[in-house]
Amino acid sequence: MELLKPLFTVNQKKILLIVIDGLGGTPPQNGKTELETARTPNLDKLAKNSSLGLTIPVDYGITPGSGPAHLALFGYDPIKHQIGRGILEALGVGLEVGPDDLCVRANFATIENGIIIDRRAGRISTEENQRICTKLSETIKKIEDVEIIIRPGKEHRFVIVFRGKDLSSDLSESDPQKEGKAPFKIAALSSQAKHSERIVNLFISRVTELLKDEPKANYILLRGFAHNPNLEPMSRLYPITPAAIATYPMYKGIASLVGMKVLATAETWESEIETLTKNSHDFDFFYLHFKEVDMKGEDGDFEGKIKLIEKFDSLLPEILQLKFDVLAITSDHSTPAILKGHSWHPNPFLLYSSYARKDNYDKFSEKNCAQGSLGIFHQTKVMPLLLAHSLKLKKFGA
Amino acid sequence: MELLKPLFTVNQKKILLIVIDGLGGTPPQNGKTELETARTPNLDKLAKNSSLGLTIPVDYGITPGSGPAHLALFGYDPIKHQIGRGILEALGVGLEVGPDDLCVRANFATIENGIIIDRRAGRISTEENQRICTKLSETIKKIEDVEIIIRPGKEHRFVIVFRGKDLSSDLSESDPQKEGKAPFKIAALSSQAKHSERIVNLFISRVTELLKDEPKANYILLRGFAHNPNLEPMSRLYPITPAAIATYPMYKGIASLVGMKVLATAETWESEIETLTKNSHDFDFFYLHFKEVDMKGEDGDFEGKIKLIEKFDSLLPEILQLKFDVLAITSDHSTPAILKGHSWHPNPFLLYSSYARKDNYDKFSEKNCAQGSLGIFHQTKVMPLLLAHSLKLKKFGA
Repeated sequence: MELLKPLFTVNQKKILLIVIDGLGGTPPQNGKTELETARTPNLDKLAKNSSLGLTIPVDYGITPGSGPAHLALFGYDPIKHQIGRGILEALGVGLEVGPDDLCVRANFATIENGIIIDRRAGRISTEENQRICTKLSETIKKIEDVEIIIRPGKEHRFVIVFRGKDLSSDLSESDPQKEGKAPFKIAALSSQAKHSERIVNLFISRVTELLKDEPKANYILLRGFAHNPNLEPMSRLYPITPAAIATYPMYKGIASLVGMKVLATAETWESEIETLTKNSHDFDFFYLHFKEVDMKGEDGDFEGKIKLIEKFDSLLPEILQLKFDVLAITSDHSTPAILKGHSWHPNPFLLYSSYARKDNYDKFSEKNCAQGSLGIFHQTKVMPLLLAHSLKLKKFGA
Repeated sequence: MELLKPLFTVNQKKILLIVIDGLGGTPPQNGKTELETARTPNLDKLAKNSSLGLTIPVDYGITPGSGPAHLALFGYDPIKHQIGRGILEALGVGLEVGPDDLCVRANFATIENGIIIDRRAGRISTEENQRICTKLSETIKKIEDVEIIIRPGKEHRFVIVFRGKDLSSDLSESDPQKEGKAPFKIAALSSQAKHSERIVNLFISRVTELLKDEPKANYILLRGFAHNPNLEPMSRLYPITPAAIATYPMYKGIASLVGMKVLATAETWESEIETLTKNSHDFDFFYLHFKEVDMKGEDGDFEGKIKLIEKFDSLLPEILQLKFDVLAITSDHSTPAILKGHSWHPNPFLLYSSYARKDNYDKFSEKNCAQGSLGIFHQTKVMPLLLAHSLKLKKFGA
C-alpha cells in the first residue's frame, strides 16, 4: 500500500465497484455453478470486452466472513486488520461506532441461584428483547462518565456500546459457554483495562438488579469486547472520494469503518441504482452492494440464487448507461448453494475499462474467470487495479 | 499456518493425497510430455470432474530435492525447515532418528601418509562396505556415553548416528573435497559443540585404528552433520490423523519426521493399495507414495516413465472404489526424462471432491493444469485446500 501513495494522481475518472454478495458457486454433481447456469446476456456481452480473473479473499482454503472479505476488497490486509466480533455486531444492528467506543455482543440469559440455566433465556422473542432493551436504555444512560448505548438484535441477542475515554477491550468474557455453571466475572487482562473492568461490572450489577423480576431474561452474558479498528480511510489510502450504497447495516458499517460516505437509499436494488444515478457526479468511487444473492446461497436455494443473478443482469444496462470509466463486478466471497454458506472458492472478477485487455470470453463464469487475463490473484490487489485502469497512479521509478 | 489453527473443526471426512514421484515432465522437440503422451483414461475421466492446477514446490526456477518438495506438500515452509543432509541419509538407509540424534553421512576413503589419495576408496562394492560396517559396529558401540550406530549405504557410502545428550551439529567437516590433500580435523564451530567435537574425533581415531590394514577403505570422511528438525507433527498442525504408505526408506522417513503413522506394506504398488484399503477406516488422512515413475525420469527413460504412468492409471479405479471425500493426485517435484533428474517445473495437481469446481478438461496434463481453476500456486497451500474441501476449516472472521 505504501507503494501507491507517492504515485497518486487526481483526475476526473470514475470507478464503480459492484459487489454481488456471495456470487461465486460450485456445481452440483454433473452440473454447472449458479453463475454458469444463469441466463445473463448483459453480463456476458460486458465480459466479452473485459478482463476476467479470480480473486482470493484471504488465502487458499480460507473461508472468509463478510468483514475480512470486504476489507480485502477495499485493499486492507484482512489478517492484519481483524475486526472484532463486538464491532461487527454493533454495525449489524445499525449502530455507528466512534473511534473510542468499546462494543460487546450480549445475550439475555436465565440465572437461578447464581447458576446459568439457559444461556439464551429460552430464545425470547425479538419483541420481548426490544421491550427489555428499551427498559434498560431508559434507566441506564451512564455508568460514571461512560455513556451506555444498548441496541436489540434478534431473539435473545443485543449489543452494548460503552462510549467514554480510555476504555480497553482487554477484558475476559462472562459467558461460561455452558449451562449449569456460574457466569464469569469480567476481568481486566491488562492493567490498562482496570477502568473498563469496573465500568462493565458496575453495568452488569445495575442490569441484574433491573432484570431480577423478568421470568426468563433475568441476566446478561457478554463476549467479544472490541474497539473500532480505526482504519486509515480509503480517501487517504487512495486518490479517491469514496461513497457506499448498501441496504444492510453490516455493509454500511464496514463501509463507514473504511471512511466511505454511506449514502441513504431505499432498500430495493432498483432504489440502490437510483441512488447511484443521483449521486454519480458527487463522488469518484462507488461501492455498490447487492446482498440477497448471498442469502439464497446460505439458504441452499440454487434456483433462487440463479434468479437473482438474472435479475442483476436485467438491471445492468441501467448501470452501464452511467458510463463509469472503470467498472468491476465481483463478490466479497463465494456462497455456493450446495454448501449453504460462505466458502473458500475464489471470486469471479470482471474489470471493464477502456484500458483493460479484452479476454473475449462468451460468458461471465467461474471457469472463464479462471482462465482470464488477470489470473488468480489476491483480493487486496483489486484496488490498485481499479486505480491503475482509471489512470490515477503515476509511473513507479524512472 | 497460524491462521488455520483457530479454524479447525473435526469431522469424519477422509482425505487421500497420492504422490506419483517425479510425475511432471517437459516435452522433447515437437513432442508431448510423458503425462500428455500416456494413455490414461481413468485419470482423464477423473480430471473432467476435478479442479486442476500447478504447484510450485519451493520457488520459481528452484529444483527441489525430495525433502523440501515433500515438506512443502505437507504444508511446511521448505526454506524455513531445511532437513540436514545427514538426516536424509539416515532416513534413506532406513534408520529411525530420535529427537537428540546427531547424524552424519560418511564415505570410506583411501589415505596414504596422511594424504587422501581416493575420496571414495576405489568405489568399493556394497558388500565390502557392509562387511566393514559390521566390523566397525561390532567393535565400536559407544564413545564415552554416546551410543554409535553405523549403517552401510551403497558402494563407499554409509551413515553414522551419534546418540547421546547435548550433541551439537555445529561442526566443521573432514572431507577436503579433493584428492591430494590431508583430511580436515573436525572442529567445533561454537562453544556448545566442544563436547561433540571431542566425541567425533575420538570416534575417527578408533575407526582409523581399526581400518589400518584395509587395502582401500582405510579412512573415513564425514560431512553433513545434522539433527532431527523436530517438526511440529501434522496432527497438531491440522485437524487430522495422518498415515503414510510408501515403500522407500527416505519417504517413510520424511513421513515419520512430520508425525505420520507409517504403515507396514509390501513393496509393490498393488500391495500399497491393499494396505490403503485395509487401513482406510483407521485414519482420516493418507499420504500414498508411488516411487518408480521418478526413477524412470532419472534414468532418462521417457517410454518407461509413460508405461508406469499408464500402470498407475490402470490401478486408479481400485483406489476410487474407496470413495475418499477428498482426493488429490500430484507429485512432489517434476522429473522430466529429457533432464534425467528433478526439475523446477511445477507439479500437475488434481483435486477431486464434491465441493471442488469442475474444470471439465478432457485430459490430466501439464497444459490443462496450467489453465485449471486452482491456478499456479505454492505447494504449501495444498494442505489448506485439502482441509477446506473436506470441510475441516471454519469461517475466518465474521
